[in-house]
Amino acid sequence: MLKPDELKVLDKGFVRLVEMMGDDFSPVQAARVSTGKGLTTPERDRRLIFYLMENDHHSPFEHIVFKFHIKVPIFVMRQLVRHRIASINERSGRYTEFEEDWYTPERVREPEKGNIQGSRFSDDEELNQKSLALIEESISSSYKTYRRLLGMGVARELARIVLPTAMYTEFYWTINARSLMNFLSLRADSHAQYEIRECAEAIAEIFKRTCPMTFEAFVRYHYSGDIITRGDQNDT
Amino acid sequence: MLKPDELKVLDKGFVRLVEMMGDDFSPVQAARVSTGKGLTTPERDRRLIFYLMENDHHSPFEHIVFKFHIKVPIFVMRQLVRHRIASINERSGRYTEFEEDWYTPERVREPEKGNIQGSRFSDDEELNQKSLALIEESISSSYKTYRRLLGMGVARELARIVLPTAMYTEFYWTINARSLMNFLSLRADSHAQYEIRECAEAIAEIFKRTCPMTFEAFVRYHYSGDIITRGDQNDT
Amino acid sequence: MLKPDELKVLDKGFVRLVEMMGDDFSPVQAARVSTGKGLTTPERDRRLIFYLMENDHHSPFEHIVFKFHIKVPIFVMRQLVRHRIASINERSGRYTEFEEDWYTPERVREPEKGNIQGSRFSDDEELNQKSLALIEESISSSYKTYRRLLGMGVARELARIVLPTAMYTEFYWTINARSLMNFLSLRADSHAQYEIRECAEAIAEIFKRTCPMTFEAFVRYHYSGDIITRGDQNDT
Amino acid sequence: MLKPDELKVLDKGFVRLVEMMGDDFSPVQAARVSTGKGLTTPERDRRLIFYLMENDHHSPFEHIVFKFHIKVPIFVMRQLVRHRIASINERSGRYTEFEEDWYTPERVREPEKGNIQGSRFSDDEELNQKSLALIEESISSSYKTYRRLLGMGVARELARIVLPTAMYTEFYWTINARSLMNFLSLRADSHAQYEIRECAEAIAEIFKRTCPMTFEAFVRYHYSGDIITRGDQNDT
Repeated sequence: MLKPDELKVLDKGFVRLVEMMGDDFSPVQAARVSTGKGLTTPERDRRLIFYLMENDHHSPFEHIVFKFHIKVPIFVMRQLVRHRIASINERSGRYTEFEEDWYTPERVREPEKGNIQGSRFSDDEELNQKSLALIEESISSSYKTYRRLLGMGVARELARIVLPTAMYTEFYWTINARSLMNFLSLRADSHAQYEIRECAEAIAEIFKRTCPMTFEAFVRYHYSGDIITRGDQNDT
Repeated sequence: MLKPDELKVLDKGFVRLVEMMGDDFSPVQAARVSTGKGLTTPERDRRLIFYLMENDHHSPFEHIVFKFHIKVPIFVMRQLVRHRIASINERSGRYTEFEEDWYTPERVREPEKGNIQGSRFSDDEELNQKSLALIEESISSSYKTYRRLLGMGVARELARIVLPTAMYTEFYWTINARSLMNFLSLRADSHAQYEIRECAEAIAEIFKRTCPMTFEAFVRYHYSGDIITRGDQNDT
Repeated sequence: MLKPDELKVLDKGFVRLVEMMGDDFSPVQAARVSTGKGLTTPERDRRLIFYLMENDHHSPFEHIVFKFHIKVPIFVMRQLVRHRIASINERSGRYTEFEEDWYTPERVREPEKGNIQGSRFSDDEELNQKSLALIEESISSSYKTYRRLLGMGVARELARIVLPTAMYTEFYWTINARSLMNFLSLRADSHAQYEIRECAEAIAEIFKRTCPMTFEAFVRYHYSGDIITRGDQNDT
Repeated sequence: MLKPDELKVLDKGFVRLVEMMGDDFSPVQAARVSTGKGLTTPERDRRLIFYLMENDHHSPFEHIVFKFHIKVPIFVMRQLVRHRIASINERSGRYTEFEEDWYTPERVREPEKGNIQGSRFSDDEELNQKSLALIEESISSSYKTYRRLLGMGVARELARIVLPTAMYTEFYWTINARSLMNFLSLRADSHAQYEIRECAEAIAEIFKRTCPMTFEAFVRYHYSGDIITRGDQNDT
């Protein structure tokens, strides 16, 4: 069962907010040190958040920090780790054994015309059935080999090289709101692979719940992706 | 009057812990994701902290994050800002006017024999008296010019160029424990200038109060400076 | 006399390209590792540079690295050092004495209406004359105090605290093209202070000379400042 | 055939120095800006390199920058990418197909007593033969499935999730000497996994060839790993 601060990602993954430092008022407080003032009225604070975002003053948002516990397949983690302004501690395949725990896509995707890196969900039922069966069989067989190697006395760190990148891994990820916004612009975007997009959307949801004004200002002025929409906004 | 979580630095400065994320158990929790376990007993947790530090596994300490409000002279801030893995928002001399607020040393320092960059406090009372008077007079006069320039209609951002680096500035500084430890190794050290050393020692004190086990392990296994001492330790 | 790869900044400063790694083809080469291909035709390479920039694929530009030797007043260096993804070694006021070398503005600036942090050049000749004389006198007097303190036997690191931020300093600055572009968006902009703008424009000029295609693509698709113009472009 | 500046890593990988900025004299030049002097005599320059390293003045070494082209298995790249102060562009499994190119260990490794994460080469010939055959068979079968999925029309980005981390990948890696030294301390060490150790040793060799004095000073004063030895040194 998921905890309240935990969002499901893909078939067996999750994004969970472990703890955080700060909220919508942290960038306000940090920015006001510039002007020698602290918090004022909620209305003015909100306006300042929008002003900072609109004018590319992103450094005050570094004072909001999130610590997530994330579980995703290795191939998704491989993309996420490329965002370098963050702290990661990952479950180790040298210390521990991989459990029987991998990603099983619900449907396969086909190459998309005119988009060399992209893909779209296939509605060819036969293709879906056949290819998903192949994928499952292949991963399952790799995992059996892994266990057999361990049983024979092969070291974990070596046995794991037969495991596919569909295997789930998990890690702690500490990241400030500025770096998180860059991540969302690139990964909560239709050009990103479906699986990391799912992960990015869960993270966006947690960002929105915890820092609603910052999130709103981000989507309006800074976000360069194309899947998060603003919702209703007739303000500021 | 200082707030409880605020330490005085030099004659008019301070280091104040505004908020923080995590404590001694954060690196334990992050490191245990490697092994698939969470917290266990306090004794084992403590042992893990010491183990991580002794074996140069510093990344789990990035999950402890401090946010300080700091007030120090510009020449100290110029040294502190060189530690790049941190987030800073500084009071702006373009938005606001500098107040009549500068650092007045208690005693002067003389060059130290055999240490080209170092200095030691002078016990020559005449030198102290004369040179401190000169310093005070010079800074005071620069400040008067600054105010006069403002009065004549010169823009703040230009008028301030006559102000000396003894002027106090203030800023928010968010930094994780790993980066903080590097800072302390270099700045809580006899080779660092006296004034930043005072600042580093206040920061070390806050680190010690909030993360006593991590601090102890740091001083024992990782700290490369020479002014923080371990105190009594006959454990682990 | 300036060396060919050295541009004058303000009255006595400069930006000099000491050495660099890579050129317009470095991002092409790095990006093509993605696709398993190397360089192709100049036309296609050029198109790829523009494609990368337009689609926010900025990481390939990190493989172009510049090393500058820069001399600017301390108050400019204080702004520049805030760009953290860069390497700096600065002349030390603890090891060496400050020379009689400070910034003398040509004209003063007045606050600008409706722009709390900005300023504009004054055309009030009396104001110019009077305030520039005051500035010069104040800095000169601070410098004399500095020298007198040194003469009396005060340590360099302490004596310098009376020196104003108008004093020139110099440093080596190594920065990759991606980080440089972020710097230019913020500092080659009308909201930046005049003096760092001058410095940023000199840097932009060197960037343009050494990586003309990358520079052109940057200005077209990524630059968010408002003072660098594209020039004539009717291509790609 | 390997090019002169290319070192073989494991069975099919390599580390190749594509280009670099600076050499042993770059940190000297950068450090001397502190003291207002440039290069002096080779003997004094050498002494300065050793002095900087011995006294933890690592920032001048950031002005030496290496650009490598590296080919290693995915599980090695997964470890290498955790060193965040570096720039990476990796071959994309979304743009391109994986070739029939994976790592085949020469011998298997067994868990090591008293070292939960370590391993040692097995001298049990039967175990070697059997387990290497199993590994080869498993990877080969996964690769066949991958090709079959592509043939059926599954998108590359999805088909690849069945591929194991033994598959080779390649990337450009730009890193400065300071960050490289941290990498070597952790990965050219007996606690690192054999395969990344092989990669780290090749990188160390290139570092040694291109910056012999810096390398020597590094090994003497800064390196905390245990597999690079100093060789003969009766100097400084």
